[in-house]
Amino acid sequence: MGKARGRLIVVEGPEGAGKSTQLAHLAAWVAARGLSAHLVREPGTSVVGQEIRRLVLDPSHSVSPRTEALLFMAARAELVASELQPGLQAGRLILADRFFLSTYAYQIHGRGLPEADVVAANRFATQGLVPDLTLLLQLDPTAGLERARRRSSHDRMEQAGSDFHARVAAAFTSFAEPAWQAAHPECGPIVAVPAAGDESQVFRALLAVLAARWPAMFGERAATDDRQVVT
Amino acid sequence: MGKARGRLIVVEGPEGAGKSTQLAHLAAWVAARGLSAHLVREPGTSVVGQEIRRLVLDPSHSVSPRTEALLFMAARAELVASELQPGLQAGRLILADRFFLSTYAYQIHGRGLPEADVVAANRFATQGLVPDLTLLLQLDPTAGLERARRRSSHDRMEQAGSDFHARVAAAFTSFAEPAWQAAHPECGPIVAVPAAGDESQVFRALLAVLAARWPAMFGERAATDDRQVVT
Repeated sequence: MGKARGRLIVVEGPEGAGKSTQLAHLAAWVAARGLSAHLVREPGTSVVGQEIRRLVLDPSHSVSPRTEALLFMAARAELVASELQPGLQAGRLILADRFFLSTYAYQIHGRGLPEADVVAANRFATQGLVPDLTLLLQLDPTAGLERARRRSSHDRMEQAGSDFHARVAAAFTSFAEPAWQAAHPECGPIVAVPAAGDESQVFRALLAVLAARWPAMFGERAATDDRQVVT
Repeated sequence: MGKARGRLIVVEGPEGAGKSTQLAHLAAWVAARGLSAHLVREPGTSVVGQEIRRLVLDPSHSVSPRTEALLFMAARAELVASELQPGLQAGRLILADRFFLSTYAYQIHGRGLPEADVVAANRFATQGLVPDLTLLLQLDPTAGLERARRRSSHDRMEQAGSDFHARVAAAFTSFAEPAWQAAHPECGPIVAVPAAGDESQVFRALLAVLAARWPAMFGERAATDDRQVVT
């Protein structure tokens, strides 16, 4: 990474926690203040990323746990190389829907794959890129799955058994613990945001976390005085 | 791996070395002796393997070097989980067109990716599976590329520059060196087979290597007395 560097903010959490909704609010908030944010969602917008997404989520064929993990890593490698690195080099603010914590939750805790191997493969995929901040939307696990289940279609991940989803939900809860974070510097700073309230409550909480960290970009003054809003 | 275990023989070499031809000869030879061999080609016959093959070789879109490596690993993970492990557990003889040496040649030497990371990702993908023997078809590098170029269509790997292919060819040559093999136990035993002669000459040389290693299966007696042919 060169000197000119943007900022990578990741929103994570289990299914139904409201990641996409909150990211949309955040992107709109940023845009309303005259800044531009680049919104990305794993596996990104590249042809290869979209094809991998289709392949890994399609419930019509079987995919071994290691294949699944490596496919997500492949998509992440393409996202990093084709979107995140150039964007950050150009000084852009990038908002990402999921990143490495989802791999921890679904592939390590959910599928039971060996952590050291998955962490090593992820470092290879991301070229060591660490998010500047991860906002972890926290929900009562059962509530999140209920929200997700109310959707009409279910992909291969959503179709996995309830034991799997219970392990995933427990993993997302554990990522908020300081001890977990201290043991996992490769994930960067993580701040939990309670996501049980309504959309606007959650968004205010999320914005408060960002304002505390980067007052010039997300603080009150930023909200009332456009001249303060500089990257 | 349990106790009942078959045998995994890999045929490797640069483009145009005659891998597919020699594997077809070998499969036919084995079949004529009343044995069955399971012929596999990376990325295997699974839906996900075929889709990955299409995706990684399609020259119409870009794929970063790390994405490429992880896609090949994902395909290999599926091949190992869905075909190699069950087949070896069932005591089958499996003949494979390419395996880990191709990753060394194309991704580590050709693309210049860090060896330790790629080796670690491969160990994760293969669950530590090591071929019982790799037959390395050796050809003058220029000749092999010429043979491959005479084919009508070119995939994304074949379209890579001549520097890339020179590095790949040099890598395949180096894999025959005892010092290289001693430093890479994860690749298993490798025996070079000169591949410059005509098809039947090369096949006789290949069979001689197999007969020296496993006389009961591939030796003269095996060829003249079917009762000797047991797995």
